[in-house]
Amino acid sequence: MMKKFSQFLTVRRPSELLLSGKVSNPHGALLSRSFVSQAVARPNPASDGDSGKVFVDYTIFKGKGALNMSPIPPKFSQLQSGCMKVDRKGAMMLNFFPAVGPKKYDWQKKQGFALSVTEMGSLISLGPSESAEFFHDPSMQSSNAGQVRKKLSVQPLGNGGGFSFSLNVNNSVSKTSDQIYVPVSKAEFEVMRSSFNYILPRIMGWDRLFNPQLPASVNMNPEPEMEPEMEPGMLLSPDPEWDR
Amino acid sequence: MMKKFSQFLTVRRPSELLLSGKVSNPHGALLSRSFVSQAVARPNPASDGDSGKVFVDYTIFKGKGALNMSPIPPKFSQLQSGCMKVDRKGAMMLNFFPAVGPKKYDWQKKQGFALSVTEMGSLISLGPSESAEFFHDPSMQSSNAGQVRKKLSVQPLGNGGGFSFSLNVNNSVSKTSDQIYVPVSKAEFEVMRSSFNYILPRIMGWDRLFNPQLPASVNMNPEPEMEPEMEPGMLLSPDPEWDR
Amino acid sequence: MMKKFSQFLTVRRPSELLLSGKVSNPHGALLSRSFVSQAVARPNPASDGDSGKVFVDYTIFKGKGALNMSPIPPKFSQLQSGCMKVDRKGAMMLNFFPAVGPKKYDWQKKQGFALSVTEMGSLISLGPSESAEFFHDPSMQSSNAGQVRKKLSVQPLGNGGGFSFSLNVNNSVSKTSDQIYVPVSKAEFEVMRSSFNYILPRIMGWDRLFNPQLPASVNMNPEPEMEPEMEPGMLLSPDPEWDR
Amino acid sequence: MMKKFSQFLTVRRPSELLLSGKVSNPHGALLSRSFVSQAVARPNPASDGDSGKVFVDYTIFKGKGALNMSPIPPKFSQLQSGCMKVDRKGAMMLNFFPAVGPKKYDWQKKQGFALSVTEMGSLISLGPSESAEFFHDPSMQSSNAGQVRKKLSVQPLGNGGGFSFSLNVNNSVSKTSDQIYVPVSKAEFEVMRSSFNYILPRIMGWDRLFNPQLPASVNMNPEPEMEPEMEPGMLLSPDPEWDR
Repeated sequence: MMKKFSQFLTVRRPSELLLSGKVSNPHGALLSRSFVSQAVARPNPASDGDSGKVFVDYTIFKGKGALNMSPIPPKFSQLQSGCMKVDRKGAMMLNFFPAVGPKKYDWQKKQGFALSVTEMGSLISLGPSESAEFFHDPSMQSSNAGQVRKKLSVQPLGNGGGFSFSLNVNNSVSKTSDQIYVPVSKAEFEVMRSSFNYILPRIMGWDRLFNPQLPASVNMNPEPEMEPEMEPGMLLSPDPEWDR
Repeated sequence: MMKKFSQFLTVRRPSELLLSGKVSNPHGALLSRSFVSQAVARPNPASDGDSGKVFVDYTIFKGKGALNMSPIPPKFSQLQSGCMKVDRKGAMMLNFFPAVGPKKYDWQKKQGFALSVTEMGSLISLGPSESAEFFHDPSMQSSNAGQVRKKLSVQPLGNGGGFSFSLNVNNSVSKTSDQIYVPVSKAEFEVMRSSFNYILPRIMGWDRLFNPQLPASVNMNPEPEMEPEMEPGMLLSPDPEWDR
Repeated sequence: MMKKFSQFLTVRRPSELLLSGKVSNPHGALLSRSFVSQAVARPNPASDGDSGKVFVDYTIFKGKGALNMSPIPPKFSQLQSGCMKVDRKGAMMLNFFPAVGPKKYDWQKKQGFALSVTEMGSLISLGPSESAEFFHDPSMQSSNAGQVRKKLSVQPLGNGGGFSFSLNVNNSVSKTSDQIYVPVSKAEFEVMRSSFNYILPRIMGWDRLFNPQLPASVNMNPEPEMEPEMEPGMLLSPDPEWDR
Repeated sequence: MMKKFSQFLTVRRPSELLLSGKVSNPHGALLSRSFVSQAVARPNPASDGDSGKVFVDYTIFKGKGALNMSPIPPKFSQLQSGCMKVDRKGAMMLNFFPAVGPKKYDWQKKQGFALSVTEMGSLISLGPSESAEFFHDPSMQSSNAGQVRKKLSVQPLGNGGGFSFSLNVNNSVSKTSDQIYVPVSKAEFEVMRSSFNYILPRIMGWDRLFNPQLPASVNMNPEPEMEPEMEPGMLLSPDPEWDR
């Protein structure tokens, strides 16, 4: 039992026996990169409403920062007909932590960036020398819009050797600007690509189409359904392209 | 509650925080594209026979039109032996909506195009500078054959930056010709490719082979089985290549 | 109800609205290919032991022949400890049918070729201008070995446009030699590739590792287990690399 | 029943009808390789705690050695809140066996190497002429650290024809050094790639997120949770990027 309180997350136990990895290609460049992939020891999640939940992630620890990714399932709502529809798509949450010492990351300064399905598609299809930038406003369409601006920049590291992930957060109220930088090796980026391909249809809820009996996260107070704005007959008319 | 009836679908709430996306590659071209991906607010689906169904989709909203895609599961029929077979393969329904104003799409003018498994294979394997065309007749093999002709044309946008999807519908009875055009970014096309790879074996019913206990959509009035036309012995004879 | 007996399978009802497909690439060649993909109407499978089974496939109909592919799940056996192991891996059965007229295929002359997991890997990784050949002896290691020899040859069609699948079967007893040839378009080959990727881990039984409660095809009379040939202690000794 | 004890595993029954495989490419080189892929006949796994387990694998038999790969599922722990989290990620266990004669492999001299998720990503993304090296110390962070050193080297075979897998194990206590070499054809490497893509999200436990009701391997004596080291409020504060 640890008595002392600390605001830093210290990685205490390596989950993998990896010492180092070296990947070379024959066209000159030798890529030598030391990377340690360890499970983030997460604090106890909230108990209310979380019972039965499952927490999964993948974390990349580097010298200047750590990048943790964790999928968020979609929310469903049940219609009066008994049908289910996706009320809110899920996302791939990227959490960035700045390093404050060897294998020490400041949990309090974490900055999150929730990749949408389309942004995941952008990263999956990223060529080895391409780059991508995404801009988010966490308070978009509220009265606080524009106060916080986040920019995720993904740039090639060169030599076909992965990408730098760099998150900028500008807060015009607190007058602060944070940047956290994590280099992602080609191998780690392939883990992202492979797991994004797995996650993408599932955070759109498409797996429920083929396994409708599975329990899902259902929003019990969905918005009123949209009949007033629609002619119901339109959708119900037989579709000449696909008459079920 | 909205009182006023409108035939237009107004997207009322963004489901994602995406402001804009910019993808560049180092070989000259800067691809700057603003795209907003939002959940289509769907009207209440029909209640008869739909209870327990799940509605999932992915929609691309652009200036001149929107493209919604939604997988359709296969139909099974049960044989007298208790076995199940696919009675009708599923499809990937593409629905096109013309824009009638900023973020306003005319729901009544939607045009559908149900991609077959092979057409999905054609799009999955499409190289960045290749194109594809598909022709459908919704009334094929009925007395109305030839009245309506649909053409889906998928053309590269240039600079490796995705594809234009353009649907032409010619109706020789109503003497109308509609065209709806939606540019699909490289990121959005990758969402299509990734989700098509997920969906393809499932709309062929192959997931049931490994999860036979899952409920499936069963056609209760299948066509008479085909014994009269076959020698049953042929299929039942031991297969020298694979003797189970 | 059809009264007349026929040994030919006549495709009676198109399951898809596809009229034709045209795929072009910008480097000169225009690939124009008419293909019709339809569900094979299968005769009633055997009832003994088949109850609860699910039959799924994908069929390519061409002028000179048809190619039907259908996955075969693995067989499991239960050990005395209650554990399950794969007793026999599954396969991807390819069935070839020669054409005997427009949209008519001779069911009696079907020839099968069961692709192993590794042969599936060979086709998945086949470059657009590469070719592959596989040789099977259905009676290998029996007294009839060498009587029947099968060769599956997969050759590029040119212009990046798919592959020809050609099956040769030589029977030294009946002195017959059959060849069935089916050209497979790039789109159809992509359906094979995508569904092979889906099927590959499943015909190795790997999905059971994560869903052990699912029912599986269990061989009730497995071979005697192999203790006499092994020192049990060897396997049971703690593995220093992965001590569970 | 075999009476005689043998420390060698003799492969007694081929599970596949494959005689040989030949893959050629048009650029000169003819790749001719004879490979036999057979199920390893495994001895009876331990009965304690293993009931209900499923054993699956894929094995490559070559002249000088055999390479068996077998996925290891993750371990979960249940939090006091009822939530589940991944306590230890799974791995892809590679087991190497030296050959001691035609189709005879020395089971006692097996050497294991557990690929982490990131190492799997490295192999999935390996270009045809790239190579990779991984170093493991099975006793890392114990008092025996450094006694045993393992190096897995993956080198291209040339002509785009797969990779050599070579495992070196140096034991400084027993003063022994073992090397086992298995050439992996392009087709076999594609089986690895395809099955790694399937396994990767699952050994991270991500499939449980969408199927939380499935039984999982739960560690009943997890480490004490980490609240003392964390401010619980930090994680529980609403995340502005994704307010669930």
